[in-house]
Amino acid sequence: MPPPPAIILVEPQLGENIGMSARAMANFSLEDLRIVAPRDGWPSEKAVSASAKATHIIDNAKIFATVKEAIADLQHVYAMTARVRDMIKPVMSPESAVGESVELETGGVRTGFMFGREKSGLTNDDISLCDAIVIAPVNPAFASLNLAQSVLLVGYEWLKCSDNAVLGRKTQFDGPGKEGMPGLSPAPKKDLAGFFEHLETELDKSGFLKPPEKRPAMVRNLRNMFMRMGATDQEVRTLRGIVASLTRKHERH
Amino acid sequence: MPPPPAIILVEPQLGENIGMSARAMANFSLEDLRIVAPRDGWPSEKAVSASAKATHIIDNAKIFATVKEAIADLQHVYAMTARVRDMIKPVMSPESAVGESVELETGGVRTGFMFGREKSGLTNDDISLCDAIVIAPVNPAFASLNLAQSVLLVGYEWLKCSDNAVLGRKTQFDGPGKEGMPGLSPAPKKDLAGFFEHLETELDKSGFLKPPEKRPAMVRNLRNMFMRMGATDQEVRTLRGIVASLTRKHERH
Repeated sequence: MPPPPAIILVEPQLGENIGMSARAMANFSLEDLRIVAPRDGWPSEKAVSASAKATHIIDNAKIFATVKEAIADLQHVYAMTARVRDMIKPVMSPESAVGESVELETGGVRTGFMFGREKSGLTNDDISLCDAIVIAPVNPAFASLNLAQSVLLVGYEWLKCSDNAVLGRKTQFDGPGKEGMPGLSPAPKKDLAGFFEHLETELDKSGFLKPPEKRPAMVRNLRNMFMRMGATDQEVRTLRGIVASLTRKHERH
Repeated sequence: MPPPPAIILVEPQLGENIGMSARAMANFSLEDLRIVAPRDGWPSEKAVSASAKATHIIDNAKIFATVKEAIADLQHVYAMTARVRDMIKPVMSPESAVGESVELETGGVRTGFMFGREKSGLTNDDISLCDAIVIAPVNPAFASLNLAQSVLLVGYEWLKCSDNAVLGRKTQFDGPGKEGMPGLSPAPKKDLAGFFEHLETELDKSGFLKPPEKRPAMVRNLRNMFMRMGATDQEVRTLRGIVASLTRKHERH
């Protein structure tokens, strides 16, 4: 896994938003938080409390007086904005920007994502220090993302993109079916055939599979339904148990 | 653009989180908010204030007493969880679940995403009413996403995916069903709930669901099996017909 990009918050106003950004970073294995001139000072109790125990991010956050200092060691910086600016600069989606960042980091190039003030975003001066503009696809009628939500999108795309990212989870996605049903080992077909015989015998006795000319199609439909279930052998035994139980019930009475 | 999926919040604890979820929905053009038994009551001043003017979402939110009622009209429901459960159910990423949801909605199948309580998530009973489990790729050492952040990821993927659909970048979907099942339109959840009630009542009478301490797990397993079938409304009627027929059989004798 390449090193994660830095997250730069420019003059954030609320400690809560810094804390929630830290939590979002921790959720997606981002580590390097840099804060430019937080309005309400630093350290911030509110940031700690909103971070939901992402204190390692908060404790290691670096505070800077200016944007220039905050990005001094970085080599490629993306500006998250809500709208296209009147600037000649590449405009990217979070997905493609993060993809590029992963490639750059893999090649040893240090990258970062810059986020603006809650109320007013990044200034044109801030953006002029960045290499590209990143705009999330949003509802144009309701385009303003919360600060921590923007950070989250970058983290989410980063963990999706970077190689070892989903390692812990990926094994769960290995089974059969769409992306896998954990623990599912479908029953041998002979077990299913046994269940079908059992069910159809009982349904013949109870008069469900009538009239005779419709029986073949009805049986096919039934089998198709139960085949889709993808039952394990234990589950096939359960199904047979259900049929036995329902038919036995009135025998006892 | 297909209709967006419903967002179902199950017993959310904090009005702030409901409000921030509404804001995230508005950011990505989701509209249908359903809330099951909000802990601090409804309407909620805190929800309104945290929604950052996404009041159209808050005002149109529907409140339900139970999960069953909240999803009654939906046909395919995804459960957002932090970890794989000991249940045989498809496990999907947000991206692929949303992709499937867009395809289903395009085919006229109503879908929803269900989110659990802040502290404890969804119960196994909640999940047993859903068709698939969705897990975001996260840092395993810091896996707990804030409620609104989870909603945001679904919204973000939805707007990405449905935009792509509009631009024709997605391959034409061949009918509403999964796995190339042309013509399959899953039954509304209330039909399935009716079938479960019917089946479980008969199995209680026949003594199948014993001993009592094992009943809850047995019922969940049964529901999970039948949920996987993805039955149409016609098929649900067939299942009820089977149960009725098997139980009636010996009454005639």
